[in-house]
Amino acid sequence: MSDIKKVVLAYSGGLDTSVIAKWISETYQCEVVTFTADLGQGEEVEPARAKAEALGIKEIYIEDLREEFVRDFVYPMFRANTIYEGEYLLGTSIARPLIAKRLVEIANETGADAIAHGATGKGNDQVRFELGAYALKPGVKVVAPWREWDLSSRESLMEYCEEHKIPVDFSSSKKKSPYSMDANLLHISYESGILEDPWKEAEEDMWRWSVSPEAAPDEPTYVELTYEKGDIVAVNGEAMTPATVLTYLNKVGGENGIGRIDIVENRYVGMKARGCYETPGGTIMLRAHRAIESITLDREVAHLKDSLMPKYAELIYNGYWWSPERKMMQKMIDDSQEFVSGTVRLKLYKGNVIVVGRKSDESLFDEKIATMEEDAGAYDQKDAEGFIKLNALRLKIAASKGRSSL
Amino acid sequence: MSDIKKVVLAYSGGLDTSVIAKWISETYQCEVVTFTADLGQGEEVEPARAKAEALGIKEIYIEDLREEFVRDFVYPMFRANTIYEGEYLLGTSIARPLIAKRLVEIANETGADAIAHGATGKGNDQVRFELGAYALKPGVKVVAPWREWDLSSRESLMEYCEEHKIPVDFSSSKKKSPYSMDANLLHISYESGILEDPWKEAEEDMWRWSVSPEAAPDEPTYVELTYEKGDIVAVNGEAMTPATVLTYLNKVGGENGIGRIDIVENRYVGMKARGCYETPGGTIMLRAHRAIESITLDREVAHLKDSLMPKYAELIYNGYWWSPERKMMQKMIDDSQEFVSGTVRLKLYKGNVIVVGRKSDESLFDEKIATMEEDAGAYDQKDAEGFIKLNALRLKIAASKGRSSL
Amino acid sequence: MSDIKKVVLAYSGGLDTSVIAKWISETYQCEVVTFTADLGQGEEVEPARAKAEALGIKEIYIEDLREEFVRDFVYPMFRANTIYEGEYLLGTSIARPLIAKRLVEIANETGADAIAHGATGKGNDQVRFELGAYALKPGVKVVAPWREWDLSSRESLMEYCEEHKIPVDFSSSKKKSPYSMDANLLHISYESGILEDPWKEAEEDMWRWSVSPEAAPDEPTYVELTYEKGDIVAVNGEAMTPATVLTYLNKVGGENGIGRIDIVENRYVGMKARGCYETPGGTIMLRAHRAIESITLDREVAHLKDSLMPKYAELIYNGYWWSPERKMMQKMIDDSQEFVSGTVRLKLYKGNVIVVGRKSDESLFDEKIATMEEDAGAYDQKDAEGFIKLNALRLKIAASKGRSSL
Amino acid sequence: MSDIKKVVLAYSGGLDTSVIAKWISETYQCEVVTFTADLGQGEEVEPARAKAEALGIKEIYIEDLREEFVRDFVYPMFRANTIYEGEYLLGTSIARPLIAKRLVEIANETGADAIAHGATGKGNDQVRFELGAYALKPGVKVVAPWREWDLSSRESLMEYCEEHKIPVDFSSSKKKSPYSMDANLLHISYESGILEDPWKEAEEDMWRWSVSPEAAPDEPTYVELTYEKGDIVAVNGEAMTPATVLTYLNKVGGENGIGRIDIVENRYVGMKARGCYETPGGTIMLRAHRAIESITLDREVAHLKDSLMPKYAELIYNGYWWSPERKMMQKMIDDSQEFVSGTVRLKLYKGNVIVVGRKSDESLFDEKIATMEEDAGAYDQKDAEGFIKLNALRLKIAASKGRSSL
Repeated sequence: MSDIKKVVLAYSGGLDTSVIAKWISETYQCEVVTFTADLGQGEEVEPARAKAEALGIKEIYIEDLREEFVRDFVYPMFRANTIYEGEYLLGTSIARPLIAKRLVEIANETGADAIAHGATGKGNDQVRFELGAYALKPGVKVVAPWREWDLSSRESLMEYCEEHKIPVDFSSSKKKSPYSMDANLLHISYESGILEDPWKEAEEDMWRWSVSPEAAPDEPTYVELTYEKGDIVAVNGEAMTPATVLTYLNKVGGENGIGRIDIVENRYVGMKARGCYETPGGTIMLRAHRAIESITLDREVAHLKDSLMPKYAELIYNGYWWSPERKMMQKMIDDSQEFVSGTVRLKLYKGNVIVVGRKSDESLFDEKIATMEEDAGAYDQKDAEGFIKLNALRLKIAASKGRSSL
Repeated sequence: MSDIKKVVLAYSGGLDTSVIAKWISETYQCEVVTFTADLGQGEEVEPARAKAEALGIKEIYIEDLREEFVRDFVYPMFRANTIYEGEYLLGTSIARPLIAKRLVEIANETGADAIAHGATGKGNDQVRFELGAYALKPGVKVVAPWREWDLSSRESLMEYCEEHKIPVDFSSSKKKSPYSMDANLLHISYESGILEDPWKEAEEDMWRWSVSPEAAPDEPTYVELTYEKGDIVAVNGEAMTPATVLTYLNKVGGENGIGRIDIVENRYVGMKARGCYETPGGTIMLRAHRAIESITLDREVAHLKDSLMPKYAELIYNGYWWSPERKMMQKMIDDSQEFVSGTVRLKLYKGNVIVVGRKSDESLFDEKIATMEEDAGAYDQKDAEGFIKLNALRLKIAASKGRSSL
Repeated sequence: MSDIKKVVLAYSGGLDTSVIAKWISETYQCEVVTFTADLGQGEEVEPARAKAEALGIKEIYIEDLREEFVRDFVYPMFRANTIYEGEYLLGTSIARPLIAKRLVEIANETGADAIAHGATGKGNDQVRFELGAYALKPGVKVVAPWREWDLSSRESLMEYCEEHKIPVDFSSSKKKSPYSMDANLLHISYESGILEDPWKEAEEDMWRWSVSPEAAPDEPTYVELTYEKGDIVAVNGEAMTPATVLTYLNKVGGENGIGRIDIVENRYVGMKARGCYETPGGTIMLRAHRAIESITLDREVAHLKDSLMPKYAELIYNGYWWSPERKMMQKMIDDSQEFVSGTVRLKLYKGNVIVVGRKSDESLFDEKIATMEEDAGAYDQKDAEGFIKLNALRLKIAASKGRSSL
Repeated sequence: MSDIKKVVLAYSGGLDTSVIAKWISETYQCEVVTFTADLGQGEEVEPARAKAEALGIKEIYIEDLREEFVRDFVYPMFRANTIYEGEYLLGTSIARPLIAKRLVEIANETGADAIAHGATGKGNDQVRFELGAYALKPGVKVVAPWREWDLSSRESLMEYCEEHKIPVDFSSSKKKSPYSMDANLLHISYESGILEDPWKEAEEDMWRWSVSPEAAPDEPTYVELTYEKGDIVAVNGEAMTPATVLTYLNKVGGENGIGRIDIVENRYVGMKARGCYETPGGTIMLRAHRAIESITLDREVAHLKDSLMPKYAELIYNGYWWSPERKMMQKMIDDSQEFVSGTVRLKLYKGNVIVVGRKSDESLFDEKIATMEEDAGAYDQKDAEGFIKLNALRLKIAASKGRSSL
């Protein structure tokens, strides 16, 4: 066991991290600093202060990081149309690097030599927290109680609370859920419980952020998103900060039954896991971003982005936000967004995000050339013959040498 | 102008290709063989015989290629979860190589030295037809009247008909559409008309294959798809041929408002173009295929497929189906499907395709390992520490040498 | 034939481009501006002035572009360890975009509406010149006489000269070569002649810039290259400009028999072609750059660069230097070079470039960790077990489900 | 500590693995089976029998795996022109999967439940052995003494020998080397010692398989390699088995000073390490394979191979030979080799491998098209104009909309 002086703990105020706070201070005989962040999870963070104080914590950090989260993490990620394994919008993955960064910064401020978190040894989050911490503070120590202790069941945790007089409030609705959940402004996730059988349909009352498509209004909602350099800067013509944009899109998206997915994903630690996610605003953002890119981005730039996106998504999923390769890719992605400005008009209806219009001063859509009508010489159709013949040349040579293409 | 003896023409029976048939025989003073295929476009092909005969055609080929189309083209493409520019399911692109192949085969049978088509010089289809033809019959000549003649408007075409007494029936509903359309079992597409302004919403009465989500039933439809080696072999437990599967999924998809998209895409010939597509069955197939892969495919195989998919999609879009690089990629894709067998359960509702269950005898989902409950030693959480530490090592070294990750 | 007012011609002063100058002015009845650049081809450019004047040219541009060429084209390309088809260092390809840029800039200065070049219709250079010109001046017209005229043989060219009293000096050694050659500071190339049979060995007297390994000195030459952010800034401790560096390396490389290759390459226009190249300095630079990167670059950054390099090389080979996708990749490549500083020591000997040492203040090589001796806890070997076990997990699960890896 | 019944140990007969054999049997109180393979390392393997017997081993496997090694591992790898980080031919990496496979097969034959190896906890080899073992026998246990014991120095090992009366012969030349070495038919490697300082030049007497270029003959050696489907089947017209080919090429390569490299590489476990390698035959094979591909492979197939090669090399380097993703890539690579047949002529001279000719019945090199002379219409130069114009179209549109390419 490492010799540790002071630990900064990612503290939610809930049962698990309260037990962890106590367990660390006892086990390592060290000071614990708690850090609680509002990332838009939809719960008050201020109550964590009293809980931490009740645990005897002296240094308590409680912060509203919503704007930083969306501006510096969610928005950059959406510039790449990022999606993991064809389905997952990386809602949990993208929040972890910000938490890792603040843990390290607080450690530096408070003279702590370790950080701690409440993620299990089976999941991706431990990796994301720790890779971030090591990248940002190479000598840092990490305490991951779920990998260390023997409090493996809910019952043993509760016993520990009782024994150590930890005043955790077990009456909150969240705690009674049969699912393991995580939320921030980008999404809410559900795991375990009956989801551990991938053949079983998730129950309707699991979902918390969105109504079902069935329960959504019979009238569509139209929304116009204005982009500047790849980021949404206004909704329906009204300028908004990043977190305000996402909050708004979550609201209208959720009301229209948008953004639920139910998938089996491949974890970095080697296993498959079932997860259900609600990402109302993100689902709208992905579709809209592709739409604004469709008229403003060069074809080859768009295709290059598409071919690199799976790698970029994998880096974020696996916890490599704070790696040089992610930053290197980000440079390229951000550079590609120079002209991605304009407006997208969307129709939201019972789970559907339908692009119905897009316009931009930077549009590369050229009606004179694209038209099926008379184009006044904008495009010489005869050029196509040479284009095709030279593109065919290698195929013709091969065929003439007797290689069959069938 | 080439010296041509006999041409095989891709003939729809409509106005354009009827004019083309006549124009070629007059211009090149050569015989014309017509080839009309049922690819599931939803129109009778047999009437093309009388039309061709009226034009004086002696060799008339009319064929039902639906099974071959789905089995040998659509199914292989869906094994790769193929999607162009994040949205387009390649409905038109994937039909062209089959037509090119039959044109060449018929040319070989009839002793023709040229093939002809009615695609314009601005589009992708000319490229797809001609690359295919050159790859399969390297000495073939190509006649592409739209790049050659001066009949550039509808009016001049109709004048030509009158002048040459071409008995084309202009009363069919399709001909009066303000849109340029193409259809086969995989999709129907719409271009031009008001779509040439990307800010204008498509009109509801444009869509032909699906009801709008608004008009779809208030009750969901559940469907179970059974996969074998990446292909759907049964629906709701009933074995079906490939074309029957797609026909069925088009029907239930269309009834439930599924599969409409409205995009601006990048053509191979260098311009951006607006297109609207209805792909009801394909939209269901894509989602379902990803779902069955999610439990049966190895993670790295899945990621490798994802990283290559944009390239593969680009090849098909650009007309390189009959190229050695496409075949080489297909080998890899097909090989990856060895264990992609099992059943996916879907809920279709007002435009939504919702995966609600997936199961397989080949499943790699391991409940014992994935569980958040006690796992009886299936997974040792302590392994994660070493895993993270070695993955972090290069990041730590860089940070300790003073490189900032921020 | 286009209506052209004034043409800027890439003019070498040799036979072909002299004929072209005259042919254009007669054929298009327009003014011709000549542009002759010193890119390090090893021939005086100033004599081109008198030749142009003798042709009646009024506006004559003669420029020394060697520093710009190496600094803004060669150096950026070498940051990516660029190599086409595993062998070719892109010596011709990388010079064309600079010429295209100056042609366009001179067109803008002189009010010309067209550019012209002497590249044939079978090669890559026409593509490189013209793509560059169109990208930089979209309305420009292009005159490519080799694709237009009927002077297809040397004899007809010489007749044309005589007829038009073009005073070309045919006595220079270059003109009598049986090879088609091109040279600049990065390389000299040889094509055609007996090289058109890929089984025939090139004759020793073809090579002009390097001695053969057999003829090189029996004593090795050692050289030390100092890098800053990926670029060589000093040789043997002496600061040098980019063109001076390359000139020096060409000299010592050539003296030591370094940098000859003999390949069959795939042209963008669809055919295979045999080419021989001498790239003495570039061959040294590639090896040295990899060596300095080997101690300063993060592993994943290096691997990402390696995986994108073939695409980047293809872009340059195919003529897309002035494309948004090349610039986007360059951003990423340049960003990767932030810490690529230090010194590489090389031994040059009879065709061999042997890396014998590399050092850097930015080195990520950590002797404490890498040592096979006692490392005082810098690395905990036990971490490897967890690392391996989690990396193996998906393989174990698959095997335990009966999938054979054999 | 695991409960282990019987272990199969990769046994070289040297000091380390002799100590390991004893240590395992004592520590785990289990039977040890030794497995010694001739992979072409250049030392007799039969003497390992007596040494194993002296250690009390009952089940002793000694096998000549040279043909299997080259045929099933080296040859398939060279089909991809595989090279790690631009320099390393993966000589060690490619031997490990075969050893892992035999360890597992012998475990199955002898009823062993564990395998063991003598690789350290800092290197790649442990990963390669263990990933292979887990993939092939998912329930297998692994004993890796270097990660477990406290015999961390040479002295403690020798004490252990004395104490346990292990009759190891310390007088062999190999044992006195200051370098850590590994050899098989593909290469010999050197690590540690003075190599741990990347600025220090390796000493000439370190190298064992090749003479220096300086010491090589003054006369070149010519060699002709005949390929069938990507593999060498004959040398100088004489049919040979794979291992015979490689043995021969090692001989002539080594005699001509070919195949030495000195690099710093990135290990999978996260650190950089200096390594020197002699790969005489492999260096020749890489060059020759590219040469035969240059005339027989389609351009796009070649480029696709090049773009995937770094990933494939990384998989082999990192130990994933027995993974589904490597096998999937192999399918594609092998498929690409269908027409890679013909003959390459090489000149070997003082470290240089010079391609001087290549020919093939499957050649795609078309002299009629490639010629700079009159081609009798094989290629219409006018096609190039349309080819360029359509490829330029997107660049022109962007420029005309005001986007600067500079």
